[in-house]
Amino acid sequence: MEQVKNYIEENKDRFLEELFEMIRIPSISSIQEHKPDMVKMAELIKENLLKAGVDMAEVLPTDGNPVTYGEKMIDPSYPTVLVYGHYDVMPVDPIDLWNTEPFEPIVKDGKIWARGADDDKGQAFMHIKAFEALVKTNSLKCNVKFMLEGEEEIGSPSLPKFCHENKAKLQADIILVSDTGMIAKDIPSITTGLRGLSYWEVEVTGPSHDLHSGLFGGAVANPINVLCNMIAEMTDEDNKITMPGFYDDVIEVSEEERAMMAKAPFEKEGYKKAIKVEELHGEKGYSTNERTGIRPSFDVCGIWGGYTGEGAKTVLPSKAYAKVSTRLVPNQDNQKISEMFKKHFESIAPKSVKVNVKYLHGGQGYVCPVDIPAYKAAEKAYTETFGKVPVPVRSGGSIPIISSFEEILGIKSVLMGFGLESDAIHSPNENYPLFNFYKGIETIPYFYKFFSEM
Amino acid sequence: MEQVKNYIEENKDRFLEELFEMIRIPSISSIQEHKPDMVKMAELIKENLLKAGVDMAEVLPTDGNPVTYGEKMIDPSYPTVLVYGHYDVMPVDPIDLWNTEPFEPIVKDGKIWARGADDDKGQAFMHIKAFEALVKTNSLKCNVKFMLEGEEEIGSPSLPKFCHENKAKLQADIILVSDTGMIAKDIPSITTGLRGLSYWEVEVTGPSHDLHSGLFGGAVANPINVLCNMIAEMTDEDNKITMPGFYDDVIEVSEEERAMMAKAPFEKEGYKKAIKVEELHGEKGYSTNERTGIRPSFDVCGIWGGYTGEGAKTVLPSKAYAKVSTRLVPNQDNQKISEMFKKHFESIAPKSVKVNVKYLHGGQGYVCPVDIPAYKAAEKAYTETFGKVPVPVRSGGSIPIISSFEEILGIKSVLMGFGLESDAIHSPNENYPLFNFYKGIETIPYFYKFFSEM
Repeated sequence: MEQVKNYIEENKDRFLEELFEMIRIPSISSIQEHKPDMVKMAELIKENLLKAGVDMAEVLPTDGNPVTYGEKMIDPSYPTVLVYGHYDVMPVDPIDLWNTEPFEPIVKDGKIWARGADDDKGQAFMHIKAFEALVKTNSLKCNVKFMLEGEEEIGSPSLPKFCHENKAKLQADIILVSDTGMIAKDIPSITTGLRGLSYWEVEVTGPSHDLHSGLFGGAVANPINVLCNMIAEMTDEDNKITMPGFYDDVIEVSEEERAMMAKAPFEKEGYKKAIKVEELHGEKGYSTNERTGIRPSFDVCGIWGGYTGEGAKTVLPSKAYAKVSTRLVPNQDNQKISEMFKKHFESIAPKSVKVNVKYLHGGQGYVCPVDIPAYKAAEKAYTETFGKVPVPVRSGGSIPIISSFEEILGIKSVLMGFGLESDAIHSPNENYPLFNFYKGIETIPYFYKFFSEM
Repeated sequence: MEQVKNYIEENKDRFLEELFEMIRIPSISSIQEHKPDMVKMAELIKENLLKAGVDMAEVLPTDGNPVTYGEKMIDPSYPTVLVYGHYDVMPVDPIDLWNTEPFEPIVKDGKIWARGADDDKGQAFMHIKAFEALVKTNSLKCNVKFMLEGEEEIGSPSLPKFCHENKAKLQADIILVSDTGMIAKDIPSITTGLRGLSYWEVEVTGPSHDLHSGLFGGAVANPINVLCNMIAEMTDEDNKITMPGFYDDVIEVSEEERAMMAKAPFEKEGYKKAIKVEELHGEKGYSTNERTGIRPSFDVCGIWGGYTGEGAKTVLPSKAYAKVSTRLVPNQDNQKISEMFKKHFESIAPKSVKVNVKYLHGGQGYVCPVDIPAYKAAEKAYTETFGKVPVPVRSGGSIPIISSFEEILGIKSVLMGFGLESDAIHSPNENYPLFNFYKGIETIPYFYKFFSEM
């Protein structure tokens, strides 16, 4: 492994340059006009895989954005690892809050600043470079497959079908993913649970056209007021979600397990300071880590309606909209919740408005057992490079496709994330510390080593 | 008066062309970039007044947009009428709902279609043309002053000071205004009451930057959820406003007066059909006309925050905003309500967010007694041209400056409105029927005639 380490050290500047080239393509999956960028991106990954040493790489069509697949099959007796990542990124707005150009990466204060620096171009690229280091030093003792998709940020709508149709090709012993975070630079952790997600757009229509708020105000239902009332009605004073049946499938975590979870380091004042809030907030009876780790949540991700320009326009608008989401815990079924919400939200609408609920995307939650060989290999890898045993953590985030992999391919995933909370993924000024980037490239080879020895 | 009528008939096509010239200037007072249009507009009105026959006209500066003033003083023994109107208009968005260009007036289906066609270019211009017809036929028996301002749609912030400074110049027996509506084409009415207004922009700040709704959702207050809760809390299940003290100064209208009001024609099914709603909505215990005429209301005029683009972005946003307004009834003080709201709204905010309330504009309500000579003259004028005694009506709308006139100049206003509910003022596809435009020009001269005879 000394050789591998040296190879990484000698090539680290080039690795960074190659990552920057990937970041410069604005591959935003949720915006139609970026379609050509998705194809460009998939092709660039193919080139990178070939350069890194795969036997073959190809850009495969799906119903949506293409998947880049590549493989290096060394020996059928070796274990096979399928590396999954995504090359698509989130939109950049609000653009005026960025300190630099989102798609012009720069290094400052020891961090890479750009959209996708962490999520997931930075983290996915660590795998390509770790693989390259193993190949070029003849140290790889696993068969490796790569699958990089371009629709993760919109819920991977095309990947389940792609997996069904490519079951044989994707056959592997474990799926390895770096698309999550760790507790802190000096506290390595492995994500063992992910929340599921359901995401809708709701439209509330009052009068057929905007009305004068003086002539009609007080006599005609205002769709913004109504939407606010309906959203407010979704949670109660204990911040519990009021939808009947919503908690039916939530598995209550035992007091014992909660006590164990409570041992994970959590510094409340630092947490509050990092996001500049005076008080935390959430479901009564649960800690902050429990609120994101083992409990579902209800968030409005966007809202709009009426006059939003400069100054004062007195109007009783015709329409109001919101993008509404729930994070679900494992065992809650996102299809079931999706239908439940539509029915419920429509049922609480007063007759004075029309409500339309459109399901946009979602996915199931996921749990990774801590006693499977691949988890143990990951644990040893972090211990080797960080000098500390990583903490197993239930994350509040969602990677909907991870549970689909298990359903369709029958393969578990190990989530070796290297991001930090301060990376501001999905936000303006996304960043990824060089420390984490290089530490990831250094740690991943140990996973292959330990996994092949199990 | 036959001569006057003939003059109008002979010049009616030119009148329309002249109005169109005024409409073509996009004089939107709430948008900074239209500043030059405001000056252009004021100058054009000056030209029009001179052409119509005033002795003098001038464009006078204010702290905001200029006022165009003009006068024709015939005889000190004659009564003096001050005509007030405004040349500024509302913004045009949502622009995609317009069927024609907002500032390119056209006549179709017997109506003028354009922003300002009714409110207030169309209605103000009727006065200039009625005056012209009287002057050119030597039939004017009143002294006439014109004051046209350019900030009515943003609450006339500069006009009170202008009135204070020009008290002598503006001295008159009555103020005559056409900036309201009538019940229907064949049911003339005169507005005897106007609601007051307070209008704020509220900003709710949660975390200092947008967060990942998975990693933080459920543990950090979402400013959109919070804003919705706060707005919902502003009204109760009876649609009463919950702010403590809000109704203290509302004068309860007697059962007797309510019974009289109930005699005004109101066709519920037609009202609902015109705005395409299945059910009306409002304060429990009051009729539709009462809800807009004698009761205050609380409307969110705009709301925005988080991701509002295409598709699904999972985000826990940093900020959420709303434009919030109350319509007030006469005797409620808009300054008092304004401060009350700020204090109240800030007080109901949870500690997990910061709330900022900015007062944008407002004004007092107004009542015109039905027994003053000017009202009687207006009543006779409508009776003459419509063949029916006009109905006195309390309107839900606000013209904040009307109550200021009374306070500062000590002059009452008579609101001879000719607009219709279907004119869609403040909305896309504003329009003004040619019938109403010409009927207004025909009716106004009778007001001068009867007023001079009282």
